[in-house]
Amino acid sequence: MKKLINQPLDFVRDSLAGMAIAHDDIIKVKFDPTFVYRVQAPTQGKVAIISGGGSGHEPMHAGFVGMGMLDAACPGEVFTSPTPDQMLAAARKVDGGAGILYIVKNYSGDVMNFEMATELARGEGIRVVNILIDDDVAVKDSLYTQGRRGVGTTVLAEKICGAAAEYGYHLPQIADLCRRVNLRGRSMGMALTSCTVPSKGTPTFALGESEMEIGIGIHGEPGRERLNLQSANEIAEILALSIIEDTTYSRTVREWDEDKGEWVDVELIDPPLHKGDKVLAFVNGMGGTPLSELYIIYRRLTEICHQKGLTIVRNLVGSYITSLDMQGCSITLLKLDDEMVRLWDAPVTTPALRWG
Amino acid sequence: MKKLINQPLDFVRDSLAGMAIAHDDIIKVKFDPTFVYRVQAPTQGKVAIISGGGSGHEPMHAGFVGMGMLDAACPGEVFTSPTPDQMLAAARKVDGGAGILYIVKNYSGDVMNFEMATELARGEGIRVVNILIDDDVAVKDSLYTQGRRGVGTTVLAEKICGAAAEYGYHLPQIADLCRRVNLRGRSMGMALTSCTVPSKGTPTFALGESEMEIGIGIHGEPGRERLNLQSANEIAEILALSIIEDTTYSRTVREWDEDKGEWVDVELIDPPLHKGDKVLAFVNGMGGTPLSELYIIYRRLTEICHQKGLTIVRNLVGSYITSLDMQGCSITLLKLDDEMVRLWDAPVTTPALRWG
Repeated sequence: MKKLINQPLDFVRDSLAGMAIAHDDIIKVKFDPTFVYRVQAPTQGKVAIISGGGSGHEPMHAGFVGMGMLDAACPGEVFTSPTPDQMLAAARKVDGGAGILYIVKNYSGDVMNFEMATELARGEGIRVVNILIDDDVAVKDSLYTQGRRGVGTTVLAEKICGAAAEYGYHLPQIADLCRRVNLRGRSMGMALTSCTVPSKGTPTFALGESEMEIGIGIHGEPGRERLNLQSANEIAEILALSIIEDTTYSRTVREWDEDKGEWVDVELIDPPLHKGDKVLAFVNGMGGTPLSELYIIYRRLTEICHQKGLTIVRNLVGSYITSLDMQGCSITLLKLDDEMVRLWDAPVTTPALRWG
Repeated sequence: MKKLINQPLDFVRDSLAGMAIAHDDIIKVKFDPTFVYRVQAPTQGKVAIISGGGSGHEPMHAGFVGMGMLDAACPGEVFTSPTPDQMLAAARKVDGGAGILYIVKNYSGDVMNFEMATELARGEGIRVVNILIDDDVAVKDSLYTQGRRGVGTTVLAEKICGAAAEYGYHLPQIADLCRRVNLRGRSMGMALTSCTVPSKGTPTFALGESEMEIGIGIHGEPGRERLNLQSANEIAEILALSIIEDTTYSRTVREWDEDKGEWVDVELIDPPLHKGDKVLAFVNGMGGTPLSELYIIYRRLTEICHQKGLTIVRNLVGSYITSLDMQGCSITLLKLDDEMVRLWDAPVTTPALRWG
């Protein structure tokens, strides 16, 4: 294992500490229980957005804490769910009285712990809604997941909902918006190489010198198929067509009904992409792939979208939801409406996303 | 070789095309001769800043074209100097009548070609000054270099001089500023793995499973020494102390004297770093190293600077001057004055750097 690390078990702590020092005008970190939060938290009267999950996907989520995006992030150990006490401590710290949205990627541990934290926070009088992201079209049910995994759309949901919170949206509106972003976002990834978890020290999976894994998960979960290595254009086609031709996906999720004061089962169905749709195209690097290669994927993606009658009106190219040092990429297409475009364009000041 | 590419010889063209499409509100690309320029170029009455060099270091330089930084960038083939006709075409395109600063990394081919372009542009009545960046303390004279190599300080010089140009500095002032940034900037890098040039298809150099190269060049040029793999903290110490303890470096460079209308030899001497100095600390990833690891290096760097009495007042952490898919990092320390801080903080809108 070749990494810029100290003790493997200190990886998360050292990295978070460095990020917090580098961006001490934007974020602070608290350890045991561990969470990252905005320096000026809480913002009274604003809905607070919190996300979290296993570490190893940097800059997600801690790198998205700041004005216009998250109020706090709860990082677990590498590829390990954060605990309910982290999520509860973060909620206490950033609650400004208008409630909290937990954005949860669909991995069983995350789902369970965020539900537990939701109940604990409610027990303390904090309003909380948790919305699931399950946008990965590659496979249904996976190593750590019931249903689809949550991947690239998470980044977009955090940006869009974060802007909505700054603009004064109320909690139920933001929850609706987040659910809508999830339903309209679709992703698929691929790997050229495995990642190596620091505490394990050896690659998570084996991939031959001329092989690639299509539909890979961000923890190295198996994808759809293992193919011979192909060109960037062919890879872009495989990923983009899987996303564009994905039709509907229906599932039942557990959500908290604030009016009834109980958990209810909600059926969700993704609307398919249609000719004429406006989309945000997101080409994401897995951590070990240089930016130059992501632009090669993006170039071909624009041609495919054009052929399919989709208009790319916004884009994001870079390594934002990674898998340690894995080489590879993912594509996310989010079907936009005017409200989402406006919220995407809103100012953001976080360690990893900054504009406006 | 595992990369997201099409034909190896199309690597630069495909990547530039993708970058230009993704950021068509900021930059445009022209091919044959190839250069990237601001959509609204030229800006009348503003000094234009142009840089360039071999490709494979993305986002440098094309990713730094835009408001507050470069007016144009001239990318060569991978690790290959751009040609004088690229530099001349870029100068013609972005000249706003106030002259042009060529920022040149100290590699023999770049130096020669930028000097030739300088003469050609002057022959057409365009005022041009070219300033060399030679900030790498690792070695004197290298595979492609007489004297020290030009590395991380280039990114900082492009930002600071780009802001000065927006603020209406005249050409001689900007040239002085660029020279000063170079003299006050020092860098050193290291590699955990080699990079692989697409057209070659195999690693540039061999490095054992438990080895690292200290003082590596951004084209894989040999460094100071090959050591057994060490911890991130130890690596940060080796790089930072080499930079901080570097005393003076004197060299003679060829610069154009506008008053005399001829090339003159100028002796330049780097001022050493002293206790009490304010610095910008830049931790750079080599392309294949994830952001999480760079923050681990940064954390230790802040401790070392503190111990040495240096105050970090600004920082930059990320992969900005890369070496294809190489794993590793570099550290740059720039001794700041108030003018440089003000220019660093000025707004910038480029594909890779954006704030304000």
